[in-house]
Parts: sequence; C-alpha cells; structure tokens
Amino acid sequence: MAKKQLRVGMIGYGFMGRAHSNAYKQVGQFFPSEHQVVLKAACARNAEQIKKFAEQWGYESTETDWRKLVERPDIDVIDICTPNNMHKEIALAAAANKKAILCEKPLAMNTAEGREMVAAVEKAGVPNMVWYNYRRIPAVTLAKKLIEEGRLGRIFHYRAKFLQDWTIKADLPQGGQGLWRLDVAAAGSGVSGDLLAHCIDTSIWLNGRLDSVCAMTETFVKERMHNLTGKVEKVGIDDACTFMGRYANGSLANFESTRYARGHKAAYTFEINGENMTLGWDLHDLHRLQVFDYKDDSKIRGWKSVHVTDNSPDHPYMANWWVPGLSIGYDASFTHQVADFIQGLESGKPQSPTFKDALETQAVLDAVLDSAKSQKWVTVAKG
Amino acid sequence: MAKKQLRVGMIGYGFMGRAHSNAYKQVGQFFPSEHQVVLKAACARNAEQIKKFAEQWGYESTETDWRKLVERPDIDVIDICTPNNMHKEIALAAAANKKAILCEKPLAMNTAEGREMVAAVEKAGVPNMVWYNYRRIPAVTLAKKLIEEGRLGRIFHYRAKFLQDWTIKADLPQGGQGLWRLDVAAAGSGVSGDLLAHCIDTSIWLNGRLDSVCAMTETFVKERMHNLTGKVEKVGIDDACTFMGRYANGSLANFESTRYARGHKAAYTFEINGENMTLGWDLHDLHRLQVFDYKDDSKIRGWKSVHVTDNSPDHPYMANWWVPGLSIGYDASFTHQVADFIQGLESGKPQSPTFKDALETQAVLDAVLDSAKSQKWVTVAKG
Amino acid sequence: MAKKQLRVGMIGYGFMGRAHSNAYKQVGQFFPSEHQVVLKAACARNAEQIKKFAEQWGYESTETDWRKLVERPDIDVIDICTPNNMHKEIALAAAANKKAILCEKPLAMNTAEGREMVAAVEKAGVPNMVWYNYRRIPAVTLAKKLIEEGRLGRIFHYRAKFLQDWTIKADLPQGGQGLWRLDVAAAGSGVSGDLLAHCIDTSIWLNGRLDSVCAMTETFVKERMHNLTGKVEKVGIDDACTFMGRYANGSLANFESTRYARGHKAAYTFEINGENMTLGWDLHDLHRLQVFDYKDDSKIRGWKSVHVTDNSPDHPYMANWWVPGLSIGYDASFTHQVADFIQGLESGKPQSPTFKDALETQAVLDAVLDSAKSQKWVTVAKG
Amino acid sequence: MAKKQLRVGMIGYGFMGRAHSNAYKQVGQFFPSEHQVVLKAACARNAEQIKKFAEQWGYESTETDWRKLVERPDIDVIDICTPNNMHKEIALAAAANKKAILCEKPLAMNTAEGREMVAAVEKAGVPNMVWYNYRRIPAVTLAKKLIEEGRLGRIFHYRAKFLQDWTIKADLPQGGQGLWRLDVAAAGSGVSGDLLAHCIDTSIWLNGRLDSVCAMTETFVKERMHNLTGKVEKVGIDDACTFMGRYANGSLANFESTRYARGHKAAYTFEINGENMTLGWDLHDLHRLQVFDYKDDSKIRGWKSVHVTDNSPDHPYMANWWVPGLSIGYDASFTHQVADFIQGLESGKPQSPTFKDALETQAVLDAVLDSAKSQKWVTVAKG
Repeated sequence: MAKKQLRVGMIGYGFMGRAHSNAYKQVGQFFPSEHQVVLKAACARNAEQIKKFAEQWGYESTETDWRKLVERPDIDVIDICTPNNMHKEIALAAAANKKAILCEKPLAMNTAEGREMVAAVEKAGVPNMVWYNYRRIPAVTLAKKLIEEGRLGRIFHYRAKFLQDWTIKADLPQGGQGLWRLDVAAAGSGVSGDLLAHCIDTSIWLNGRLDSVCAMTETFVKERMHNLTGKVEKVGIDDACTFMGRYANGSLANFESTRYARGHKAAYTFEINGENMTLGWDLHDLHRLQVFDYKDDSKIRGWKSVHVTDNSPDHPYMANWWVPGLSIGYDASFTHQVADFIQGLESGKPQSPTFKDALETQAVLDAVLDSAKSQKWVTVAKG
Repeated sequence: MAKKQLRVGMIGYGFMGRAHSNAYKQVGQFFPSEHQVVLKAACARNAEQIKKFAEQWGYESTETDWRKLVERPDIDVIDICTPNNMHKEIALAAAANKKAILCEKPLAMNTAEGREMVAAVEKAGVPNMVWYNYRRIPAVTLAKKLIEEGRLGRIFHYRAKFLQDWTIKADLPQGGQGLWRLDVAAAGSGVSGDLLAHCIDTSIWLNGRLDSVCAMTETFVKERMHNLTGKVEKVGIDDACTFMGRYANGSLANFESTRYARGHKAAYTFEINGENMTLGWDLHDLHRLQVFDYKDDSKIRGWKSVHVTDNSPDHPYMANWWVPGLSIGYDASFTHQVADFIQGLESGKPQSPTFKDALETQAVLDAVLDSAKSQKWVTVAKG
Repeated sequence: MAKKQLRVGMIGYGFMGRAHSNAYKQVGQFFPSEHQVVLKAACARNAEQIKKFAEQWGYESTETDWRKLVERPDIDVIDICTPNNMHKEIALAAAANKKAILCEKPLAMNTAEGREMVAAVEKAGVPNMVWYNYRRIPAVTLAKKLIEEGRLGRIFHYRAKFLQDWTIKADLPQGGQGLWRLDVAAAGSGVSGDLLAHCIDTSIWLNGRLDSVCAMTETFVKERMHNLTGKVEKVGIDDACTFMGRYANGSLANFESTRYARGHKAAYTFEINGENMTLGWDLHDLHRLQVFDYKDDSKIRGWKSVHVTDNSPDHPYMANWWVPGLSIGYDASFTHQVADFIQGLESGKPQSPTFKDALETQAVLDAVLDSAKSQKWVTVAKG
Repeated sequence: MAKKQLRVGMIGYGFMGRAHSNAYKQVGQFFPSEHQVVLKAACARNAEQIKKFAEQWGYESTETDWRKLVERPDIDVIDICTPNNMHKEIALAAAANKKAILCEKPLAMNTAEGREMVAAVEKAGVPNMVWYNYRRIPAVTLAKKLIEEGRLGRIFHYRAKFLQDWTIKADLPQGGQGLWRLDVAAAGSGVSGDLLAHCIDTSIWLNGRLDSVCAMTETFVKERMHNLTGKVEKVGIDDACTFMGRYANGSLANFESTRYARGHKAAYTFEINGENMTLGWDLHDLHRLQVFDYKDDSKIRGWKSVHVTDNSPDHPYMANWWVPGLSIGYDASFTHQVADFIQGLESGKPQSPTFKDALETQAVLDAVLDSAKSQKWVTVAKG
C-alpha cells in the first residue's frame, strides 16, 4: 500500500536542524505508519551552507528565503529551527499558507508573541507542535504514566535544575555561529528561555499549572564582545535564574538554571515528591528513572534505579528499539516526537505540546523575568 | 602525667544527649590530649529516667533541677541538650556561674535571644561552642580546606537541601516524647530551625556572609493533636521552607528543606560551584566528597568521588581512626567536635562555631522567616 | 563531487539486521566520506518477511537464496547477520565472489572454521571486519587511547563480566524466532559465544594476548522444549561460564558470563587495573568511563566518572554528534563501525577487528570450552 | 541490680586491638545487658607500648607475657589480636585455663591448626567466637535475614571480591610494625588469609557449603626487604588470589582478592543471584544493601539502594543507634559482635561464628591454596 507523503520544509541547519533531520529519517524504520516523511526542502540565508547541509542529509531542494519556502505547494509541514526572534513571523506566514508547523522551543520571545501564534494556527486549523523533546525520553514518559495512574498521591514538591558550565570563560562573544543564545536580541533571554523553558514544560505536563513565582536572575559576566559590532558591549541575557513557586495543586516549586555551575554539562534533573511515591530523573543518565515507592516492603524499601530499556509495553517507546539493557540516545526523543506527531495526524487527536500548551510555559517565563526585575512574587497569567 | 579533668554536666538525655555522651567517652582514646573528660552529672526533670540514663552512660550523679546543676562547683562545662526554648535561660545561668558551655543548635529561638547569650558568655569570658556537628564530618572539613587553599576561584553558586519524609503521616502529635520538634512553643520553628540551620551554618563557614534572602514556607498538615492539651490544634511550625539569597561574595544561594520529600531520610546535601572547582556532599554517604576539578586533563575530566577515609593528613581527622576504605559514622562528628573544643581550651584559640558564630545563622533564620511572612526580600541583620 | 557507492547485501533481518541497517542509513550524515552507502538488497528464506523488512528499511530489492545474493554483481559488501552456523559457508562464498564482508560475531562456530574464513578473505584480498561493536562505544575507545598513551603502567588485572537474566524462566523453547541463541546447533555455544566473545574481544584489544585459561560452565535448566521437534530435549548450551586466565603481559584475567544473574539486563562491565591508572566501564551506562588516576593530588584522589560526550577531539567520535552532556545510544556503535570500515577502504589501512583479529577471540573461546570440559588449564592456540 | 562482670584480657594493641577495645567500651551504652564489660588487662611484649595503650584505653593492668595473662584468675575472656601464627598456641592455653576466647580471623594458619583449636575449646567447654565482623554490618545482616526468609529462591551465583591497592609500591618491607601481613611466617598467606577469608566466611553464612574450588595466585612483587634480616628476600605471600567454585546448593562461586587493584582501598563486595531476588553489598558504602526484587511491578522494577539506617526492627541493630539516614561506621560491627557474644552467654545459645564455624572457612582457604599450587580442582575437606 502506498504511503501518504509528509513533505518537510526545514528552516535552519544547526544543532536542531540536524537533530530533527535525523528523526525524520529514522521514524519510518522504528515507528512505521501510514505516512512517509519526505525531506523536501531545506532553507537558510547562506546558499552554500544550506546546499551542503541538504546534500549531506538528503533534502531534495534548498531555499534561501523562508517566505518562498512557506509558500511552496509541495511542502506539508514547516519546521522552524531558527533563533527565537524569528519564530513568530515564520509561524504566522506558515499558518497563513495552511502548513502544519513544528516549532523549536521556546515558542516565542514572550507571551504576547505566543498568543498571536496560537491564534494563527487555531484560525488556520493547522497541526502544530513545539519541540519540547524531553517529554519523550522513555524514562520521562514513564514518569508521566505513573503520575496518571495516581501512584504518587498528594504532591508536595517539584524541583528541577538545568545546570551547565560552558559560558564561564569570559572570551566567548555574544552572538555569532552557534552562539546566538548569548545574544539577547536573538534569544530574548538567557538560561530562562533556553534551559528553564524545558524544565517548566516538563513540570506543567507532570504536575499541572504553576500559579505564582518569585525569581532571581544574575549576569555574572557583564560585558562581552558582540559578534555583529565587534565591540565589547553590555550582556543582556541572564546567566543564572532561580525561582520558587506555588502550583495550583498546592505543591511547592524550586527551579534553578545556570551556565556557571562548573562540572555540569547538561544537567537537567527533576524530582517530584508525592505522598506515596517520588520520581527523579537526570538527563546525564537519561535511560534511568529513579523511583521511591513507599508502598514497598519496609525492610527493603529504597530508591530504585529503573533502567528504562525493556522492549515491552512497560517502557514507553522501547518495544520499537533493541533489547533490555541497551540504551538509546538523546536523539531518539526527536524520533519519538515525529512518530507521535504523525500518530496525531492519523488519529485526529493532536499530540501535545501544541502551541497552546507551549504558551503556558511562555507565561511562566514572562512571570519569572518580571519577578526577577520587580523582586516580587508574580501571578502567572493565563495562557 | 596526670591529666586535667573536664567535668561535664549534661542537661537532657534524648538523641543528642546520647550522641554527645558517646563523644565524651570516645575522645580520649581517639584524640588523646592533656584533658580527661569526666561524666560528672546528668540532669532532667524525670528522676527515674535520668537515673537510668546516668547508669547506662556512666554519669557519676544526677540532678532534676538544672539550676542546681549549673551551680555545682564540680562541673566545668554545661552541655545544653534541651528543646530550643530552654537554651537561653540555661546558658545565661551557666555563664553567670562561669561554666564553659556547649549548646545544641540552633543557638536560640531567635536573634534577640542569641544576642543575649553571646553577651553573657563574652562578659563571663567562658569557652562556648554550638553543636553544628556537620562541620566536622571529614569530607566536609576537607571541603573547607580546599576552599581555604583557594582552589575554587570565584564562587557562582551555593545550593543546599535538607530533605526528610518522617512527618508525612497526619497522625503524629505535635510535641511529646521525641516530638518536641513539631511543637512551635518548644522548637520556635519547624524545618528552618531544625534542618536549614545546619545548612546555613555550613554555608556561612564555607562561603561567607549571606546578605539577603527571599523565602517561602508551607505547613502541609494544618492541624495535629497536641500532646499537652490532647486536642487537635493548629500546627505552628513550617513543614517546608525554601529560600533564595545573595552572598556578600556575589554568589547566589538556593536552599530548601522539608519533611515531606518522600524517600529522603536525612538528605542533607550541598554543592558549591567555583570557577575552577565544584564540591558536593551528601549526608547519606557522608564519607564521600564529590569533586570536579576543571584543571584536570580534559580527556579524563569528570566528577571524582573521594572516599575520605585515608589515615593520613590528607583526610581531616582520619589519621586517628582506621585504615583506608573503612568509614566512620555520623557519631564521629561529635567526637571530633569535643576533640577540637579541648584543643581550643589547650591552645587558647577558641574553635568555631562559637555562640557568636552561631548568631550569624540565627540572623539568617530570622530573615528567612520574616521573608516568608512578608513575601519580600529581606536583608540579613548583622550578627 | 559524485560519491562512490558502497552497495550492501544484507543477509538476515533480526535484531542485528536492524542495527546494521540503521548504521548504514546514519553514517553519511554523521560521518560523511567519499562513499555513499546504498541498501541494495536484503536476503532471507522467508520471502514475505524479507520483503516487509526491505520496504521498511529502504532496501532496493530482496533475495531468498543467499547464494544468489553473493553472486550479484551489483553488490559490493555482504553483511552476514545469520545464526553462527551459517557464517562460514556464506563468508567463503562471498570471498570467492570478491565481496567485502562484514560478519556478525562470533566469527565462527570454532577456531577451525574461523581459520578457513581468514584464509578465504586473505586469499581473495577482500576487505573484512567482524561486528564486535563495543570497541566503538566512545567511552571504550577512549579507554583504548589512554592505554596506548601508556597512562596505566604495568597491568595487574583485567576482569570482565557479562550478566543477563532473561533465560531464568524454564518455559523458553530452545530455538525459534529470536531464540536461536538457545539452540546449540545454530549457536555453537551459549553465553560463551554470545556474551563472553564480546568481553574477550575487548580484552585482547585493550590488554593483549591471553595465554592460558581455566574455565567452568554450567547449564542450570537441563531440558527445554525444542522448537523444531516440539519435544522436550536436553539443552546443549552453557547457561553460565566463568574463567580465570593469564595474559602474555603477566596480568591476571577473571571473566564471567551468565544468563542467570537476576537483575542484570545486559551488564557487560570491565575493569583494567594498572600501576598508575585503573579504567572501568559498564554497558548499562555506556557513555561513562570510570577513571582512577593515581597521579592525581592525593587529597582529592578518587574515582572519576567521565561523561564521554564532549563534542571535541578529547572524546572519540563525539565531535560528530551533539553537545556536551547529551548521550548517544548503543546503536551509534554500529554507525561508528561503518564509518571506520569506510575510512579503512579509503585509506587502505584496514580497521580492526578483521577476521584475523576475531580469530584470536575464537581461539580463546575454544580453549575456554575445552577447559570447562577437561577441568584443566588450557593453553590458548595461536590464531 | 548489679551487673555480672565480663573481664577482658586483650593480647595485642594494633588496629584490631583498638577496634575491639572501642567495642567493649561502647557495648554497654548501645546494647545494655546483664553484663558489664571490664577492661582488665592488656598484653604485649613491649612493656612501654602496652602501658601507653592501656592508659589510653582504660585497661586496668598490663602484662608482657601472654602466658601469665591466660592464667590470671581475674580474667574471663581472652581476646587474641596477634599475628596469625600465634593464634593456636594462645587459644590452646586459654582453653586449658577455662577462659572464653574471642580470636581474630583467620582462625589459624591452616585447617590442621584450626582443628586443634576447635577440639580444645570444645573439650574445655568455653565460649568462643571469631572476629569475622562483617557479618554484623546491618546491611549484611539484613541480607542474611532476607535469605533465611526464602526470598531469593534457587541460587545460581555468588561472587565476591576484596580489592586493595596498598602494596603496589615495591619499597614496602615484608614484616615489621603494621606490616606483618606481608610476612608469610607471621601471616601464613597473603590476600587469601587476610581478605578472602572474610569473603568466604560471609559466603558460607549466606549461601552454605562450598564443595570444590579451582584457584590461581600470583605474587607480583617477587622480592622485598625483610624487616628482621634487613635483606632483600623472596616474598612468600600471595599478592592476588582468584578462585572459581561450586556450592553444595548447585550455585557457582567466583571470588577474587588482590592488593594490586589501583583505586580500591578496601573494596569488599559481594552479590548473590537468586531466582527471585539478587542482593549486593559494598564495604565502601557499608550502610547500603542493593536489592533487586523480581516480584516488583515490572514497570518500575529496578535495583533498590536500601539505606539500612532505620531505627526500627526492619534494620538489624539500628534501633539501638540514631535516626533514619544517619549511618554508623565500620567500628560498629565490632560493637554488635560483642553485644551478640554477650547475648550468647546469657541465652546459652552460642552466636556464630564459633571456632567450629570458622574452621569451614579455613578448609576452603587450604583448598584454594592447594589448588593454586596443583593447578587442579580441589575438593574442600569437611571442617
């Protein structure tokens, strides 16, 4: 039986462009469906670079103007892998052209932009999703399932951290190849939009709405050379951001993110403490879920390290990979997201996080940055 | 050569009474000095109980009125192991009687009380110390030494947690045998004075003054039976307390404590992130110090788990115990404290934390509780 | 510039067929070279199954007779993913047809077969390699580099284990879909050929020739239903195999493998103890290398957990993947092997393990099984 | 009520002399009974040294001739902490004088000596015990209880290692202060009697009789200066010893011990694999028991790290110490052994390991050394 084509138009070719492309190529082998993903076109301003990328990854054609790409009739889905300040404009144009949209996170520069984007995709009625890929690490998905089964009971605490150390050196420029995340004009914020956004998304998914927050930010290196002007300029991003908060379900939040925690590469960790069960996870050992089950026999009660690699329905997504004990990589989370996106298309039940879901995270981010500025508790706006 | 006697008068016989007594009995064997500790008298209101305790632990006599004890001429040092609300009164009387004083933590119910106590011991000129025993876990003392050697460089972050789960069950009474920590009248506060106090003391010792804090507290179980009235009454303590803060050295603080983190027994952990080195510690594996040394060869740079058990000067206190690989217990931290207290007496250089040192922690605790109430940032008062 | 084609003919479509196919599809994107891998044909006796596999994975054609496949002029390399008892016959035919050969491990049913295969590929002068993929897990490759740099000094011990628990249940049949590893006629042996083979290959690579061995085997479940006869028959494979040995360099070997170690999924671990450095690895956390460096400052000497995920030349293969902290999966080891195989073709320097390299492992396996039978020490034959 | 006195005569004042003395002093406080331990006399050839030791530890008197000590009527129990070559002679004399005997491990230089010792204590009818203290680490005792409760089902494997690295340096003399363990005349053997003896004792206790063994030993540093002659002489001890074996219950043994495993201080680890449960332990984190329970819910099945520190009957011995999460040290295992020895006296049910129990371990040690010499499998003699 011939498959339906899902023709992708990719904008960007950096870290995320590669991660998504790998997922598009893998999905048909590991998660076969009625659809076949076709890498139709890749787009970037630099004609030479995008051509090279397209050849290496098997895209059929290239564009240097994203406006042309979103108007091409042979494209079904637009994948936005640009810096954050381009998300809104591209998404609005893509929606206007009735394209499905897969947008990198965070959704937008702020809640206001995010609302426009949600309105656009809802008006156009196009499928849409945001690449909060950590939801689909099997150990994290398993955590979600355990929570949905009601195993945790009343929740008391949720804490998350995302620690890195790569910007400690003072001679990194703000902006430029691979460094736009240090340029406030392109990124909108520093660790909050880049790292905390992931933590917040997972947290809302697992623990529900965050009602109010109180935050603190710091910029440790105050000035850096700017790649565009060539001059040393004031740094506009937050190097570190910590916040406390209260969830709608009465539990307490403690979040922290920084790029100045020596020794941590990409240490995204979370822990959720329920009356009956606690769950914990660490991106550095992404295939493990830490589980403390109070209902265990008290003689041998302890923290369980669950190696989430069984090729059985017990462990989400893993039945489609290898055999027990053999782990998959970070990259597989993107493959799972594409598989679920397609499953959403075929079933008619959109898979989260949609733009609307991601708007909630945006509202928390806005509240966090407001609070850091005002030094007061801030109520999170409704998405 | 005959030894000088150090005659101890102990007030209290609970958990801490036992821990201190074990230290007094061990110190002469593991850390011999010019002094011999003599267990002279144990004191508590219940004559039968204190008699039993005295027999078991080898105290020569008992008292049921602490006022009598502090006046006895055959006592050199008063050890205060009572609930917090008795610390001040006893300490003032002991100082007036020219006794050296070893006081359980936290120093007092609040900063005002603490100031009186500091004034009293300074006026009397008596040796004084507070039982913040975690400073003398060898791995923690090693952390202090590494910081003093300047190995960390500029500090960016200090984070500490003290997580427990023993009060989740709603049928614990507030107050009574072994439960005075749940009674606000006896304890002054909940997890902040009990658990965060330890975290703050270590942090000030390792990272210096905390300038300002912003806190959040919560009481998850709002009412409990009171042991004195036999009635269900409103709970006055904090079950959980989280705070952010800023240190005088420009680094950021993130502290959290709770008795509602399922799965954690006594999970006191801290991490300090410096430009060149990060150090981490966990009470659940107290003999290990986690070290990340950025100056290591980049090919094999990673987190080192240092098993701080070498019987060499490299590892504080350990030359006096066993052989490499064989760990000592939580209890040894008290033995070390007594050894250092005696060393302070003999050298004339008082060992920290003195009452004055502990007053700083008290000031942070007051600021934390004020902030939680006012929901604002609060500047920490000078000790 | 047009790429040279490397046209693959795959025999088999099980676990390894999938793992290799994924590698063929990924290699061009992550490790671009002058060659383009083309999935030309997939072969298996079951026409329907192989057709389905070919469609899913993008093979251009199918065969049901491997003899036809090896004679096809449009095939450059034959990939042998069959049960072990087919390796020799196919390899000899492929060599006779001047095909390059990639053969699953173990090379053969025994050393005698292996020698025929080595003779065949050497006579034919065709590129050849065996899929001992664990050499190319970045952490393992890093271990090899550290050893080659002479960091370990004199070696005293090498120990390896491969523990599983999946055959404890007595109702598994011997043989049949996914279970040929339990059928001695198809597999030749049990855990020794399946699991110990990996351990031995890595060990020879890292620590050199094993001179002599003394082994013990056990079959815990003595009878199982046979899938071909439908009858309960005596089990011919070893369920567990332990051996001691002596290396040519004077160090001692301790190896163990079993499928009856409850709790272990695929626990392949090794440790090599040198005078100056010890290295350890665990397949369950494959992105970490454990390093103990005696030359470290004695105050902070400890086991380092190196997260081998830096996108720099420090960490083998990782510069071609993501960013520090983001791990790759088990599957990437195959992608690396294809990349190196191609690099060998292009450079003219064959990459190990060749058939000849793999023959050494076969000789150790034979000695191990001989020793278990004779209950005596056995000298390992020269490959 | 007046307590019965248990008057100890200690022979030796080294590492074990200190460890035992600490236990004698602690036992009355933590494990009160009808007996009071009295440190009556300490004995060693060096009058000055033993005097100093007696003063520091509170022994009432000293002796320089052990024969005098064992004849003193005011001594109830003789504690033998000498090098191994003195155990037999002292034990025989002590038994002849009707003293209870606590003897350091291993029981004797060999099985023949051990048999004489067993005969002597049985003839004399005196209480006797051997200091295989690791049985009384709470996590190890918990393992024993779980096995006795039948939780493991059929046992397949038992593996143990005791790895150290302190003799790698070639300039250590054989013999002398603290180094008699390197002198074959004093120690009888190297790592086998010193380290493997512990592993074997625990294993017999947990898994029953070892029927046969096959061993390999190595002496890496062949010559060392001898402290008595001052000359470089051939080393007579084994630096490393590995053996395989078969238990009476059908399970397989894999044991290894060495002082040449760089990075390991006192890494005694064991694991026992049962059909339904696996248990593991590591001396470096002695308060944790690793438990894999196959009967757990398959979704969240994993290795549990049980922090064996609950002050409840769930965790052996711990109800007498602190509160959950606070660990005790290596030293506490000796305190527990004294407590149990006294409990045995009072109940009339001797606590293991008696001399007779320890003789079994001696028989395994003899078989191991025989096998290493003959390079053959050896049947373990009946104790």
